[in-house]
Amino acid sequence: MNKKIKASKESKAIYSRATKVLTGGVSRNTIFRKPHPFYVSTANGSYITDVDGCKRLDFANNMASLIHGHSHPKIIEAVTKQLKRGSAFTMGSEIEVNFAELLNNRTKSFEKTRFMNSGTEAVMTMIKAARVYTGKHKIAKAEGSYHGTYDYAEISQTSSPSNWGSIEKPNPVPVVEETPKGVLDDMIIFPYNNIERTIKLLNDNVNDIACVLIDLVPHRVGLIPGTKEYIKAIYKWTRDNNTILAFDEVVTYRVNYSGAQENYDVEPDLTALGKIIGGGFPIGALAGKSEIMQVLDPRETVLKHPHSGTFSANPISLTAGYTAMSIFNKQAVLDLNKLTKKAIEQVEEAIKIAEIPACVTGSGSMFRIHLRDKKPTTYRETYQGNKEKEIIKELLDYLLVKEDIIMINTCSCMFATSLNQKHIDKLSEALLNGFRIIKPKLEKIL
Amino acid sequence: MNKKIKASKESKAIYSRATKVLTGGVSRNTIFRKPHPFYVSTANGSYITDVDGCKRLDFANNMASLIHGHSHPKIIEAVTKQLKRGSAFTMGSEIEVNFAELLNNRTKSFEKTRFMNSGTEAVMTMIKAARVYTGKHKIAKAEGSYHGTYDYAEISQTSSPSNWGSIEKPNPVPVVEETPKGVLDDMIIFPYNNIERTIKLLNDNVNDIACVLIDLVPHRVGLIPGTKEYIKAIYKWTRDNNTILAFDEVVTYRVNYSGAQENYDVEPDLTALGKIIGGGFPIGALAGKSEIMQVLDPRETVLKHPHSGTFSANPISLTAGYTAMSIFNKQAVLDLNKLTKKAIEQVEEAIKIAEIPACVTGSGSMFRIHLRDKKPTTYRETYQGNKEKEIIKELLDYLLVKEDIIMINTCSCMFATSLNQKHIDKLSEALLNGFRIIKPKLEKIL
Repeated sequence: MNKKIKASKESKAIYSRATKVLTGGVSRNTIFRKPHPFYVSTANGSYITDVDGCKRLDFANNMASLIHGHSHPKIIEAVTKQLKRGSAFTMGSEIEVNFAELLNNRTKSFEKTRFMNSGTEAVMTMIKAARVYTGKHKIAKAEGSYHGTYDYAEISQTSSPSNWGSIEKPNPVPVVEETPKGVLDDMIIFPYNNIERTIKLLNDNVNDIACVLIDLVPHRVGLIPGTKEYIKAIYKWTRDNNTILAFDEVVTYRVNYSGAQENYDVEPDLTALGKIIGGGFPIGALAGKSEIMQVLDPRETVLKHPHSGTFSANPISLTAGYTAMSIFNKQAVLDLNKLTKKAIEQVEEAIKIAEIPACVTGSGSMFRIHLRDKKPTTYRETYQGNKEKEIIKELLDYLLVKEDIIMINTCSCMFATSLNQKHIDKLSEALLNGFRIIKPKLEKIL
Repeated sequence: MNKKIKASKESKAIYSRATKVLTGGVSRNTIFRKPHPFYVSTANGSYITDVDGCKRLDFANNMASLIHGHSHPKIIEAVTKQLKRGSAFTMGSEIEVNFAELLNNRTKSFEKTRFMNSGTEAVMTMIKAARVYTGKHKIAKAEGSYHGTYDYAEISQTSSPSNWGSIEKPNPVPVVEETPKGVLDDMIIFPYNNIERTIKLLNDNVNDIACVLIDLVPHRVGLIPGTKEYIKAIYKWTRDNNTILAFDEVVTYRVNYSGAQENYDVEPDLTALGKIIGGGFPIGALAGKSEIMQVLDPRETVLKHPHSGTFSANPISLTAGYTAMSIFNKQAVLDLNKLTKKAIEQVEEAIKIAEIPACVTGSGSMFRIHLRDKKPTTYRETYQGNKEKEIIKELLDYLLVKEDIIMINTCSCMFATSLNQKHIDKLSEALLNGFRIIKPKLEKIL
């Protein structure tokens, strides 16, 4: 304990400076923790060494964005080469064509692609394109689902029992205070994976919906995959009602070689991408059917949806992304998903040994631990009360500070190809220790 | 002529592939041109060499984002070093503190900073923060002013005589079709630099305005600096009416050591940044008064404005930006502005020699050529009819294809420290040649 406290002297000092110049001392709330965040010195493969020399095993991979872990030599090599040739121009670079070819070949529904700077920008552009194409304005999304920080996309991401209203018609709940009423009025919030209720809500707005926005394995809803029947029912509804089926695969594109959409019999009209396709560099992309993407085409006599971006399709992000996705080939996807499956089995074994009420959800190379017996099936079942939140925080802090293991704050792991059996053994052992520590507190709140 | 046509064989071939996978064959409309864009092989200093071996002199600097031109050795060195230490983590990195310190020391109104991925994200976050802080929803902005692609921010950026309405009350005109009515209803559009009309429009909405969004030298309005009296009048109005004064310095931060705001006696509450502060890498930032930035502070009991971002404050963009801004010190700013002033004089001389009706506007290291005798003072005066647009296109195409000079499509130059006297001599000579070519056509439309 003392060793650890002493060992965070440098991080503490940096944070002290940070509070003077950055709001709350951070530039991303994700990295915020009390009493202070840790600051990175170097990161390599699955290990991050902080400025005090503490080396930790990383299962967060920058919120699922690093599919090969840190500092992959082939990505460094490719980016270093491009660096000397320039990082951004008011002209094209061949890599934007190569990378669009790679992505479009990878996923059948990607007929045309456009690159941007973040998942937030990708979802925003997707929603705007859906409005233009359909001439309609309402957006339907799942309660609890995260889609970036565009006002419309973030509605009801953090709904709570105090404001979420009836499950028959969930309230549109703003994430940011003073979100304009016009935004809230345009939102239809549905309970994920509930066909009957979702279709009823869509039918209630049958003439007004521009797009149904779907994350196929929504992390904040509970990292529960959409059922085949559910996605098919929504697909069918969108076909019957001139509505865009818009997938947000910013997180889930890692699930299969062609994204999570490979698990379903239906194709979306548009897909938003980000995270892993940047190879560790800022990126976003919108991909989909040519006919719809055409609203962005500058060759059209009337350009319905003008869109540009100073750093969009910059050759550094695209070179890194192209390299990362080339390495993440069919076999690599299978291997990573197999390793993740093994990790889930070991975590489930640890849960059994510790005899705590917990379970694991997930898909592909992602999983999430819930502190309850039964797998949640909806956002409302996933929702953690304050006492549960505290216990999860204690577990994650224990892992971070005592076991040197980094997980995502929802108690999730997003795997990278840099992980191996040794790492997952360490993870399941550390979790077993952690489960035993939180067990008494967990029993109290049940 | 033949040599040039033959010489674009490779670019033509890449674009032919591009049209199959990217909408319109491009990922940014900025790079689009007929019959095809040029594709970059390498870029160094102020020169870009395309895939057919044609070397051009660059005065666009990726839409004003490269303050040192391409591939600056110190930026390459710093980024290469950071690359080996990782590109993105779910933890902090010291560079975010160093860079926030640098920016906050540079500009008095920057008490706290937060980094994001693009200027679009910065303006979006600024508008959301203004709503939260004031509890109000309307946004006032100048007709013609560009502020990124967030729905609210882009309204009336492309207004035209057919839709702009009365100058007493300019219409809010959407850029993207099917922009929701709720967005349009929240916008107040004012004529830039017209104190009386602007204040009247603000007064008409006295209780509802969250922020007045101001670019101090708005490129699309005409690259005309706001007058001191105008900015002061708006500042005073915002003080009297509990409204945020929000500067968009994404483009203009280059104008002085402390940004364009150094030219005025008033301080904004919030400033959006981007472009040059990324050193050629994707970036955005919001900076401003601690009390207002506090709405983003994760330490608050009630977090009013949750905000994160997978690649926000990534150490690659921040390392490049920190290096670029360190080199762009007080002397470098003065030298660059002096060179730009010299260039403007030479361009004005070329206009005189060619005897064409043209003039130059600008500030700091930026200027724009207008094909009219008198400097425009408003967006409506700056607005180009179709015939004028065609002539400008012809001039820019001549410069690009025959003189190997790259300018921005508004007939603007955004200078970089890699430029020197030899380069501006080449520019003014080429422009003189171009002016002589367009002169007969220009005389016809007058």
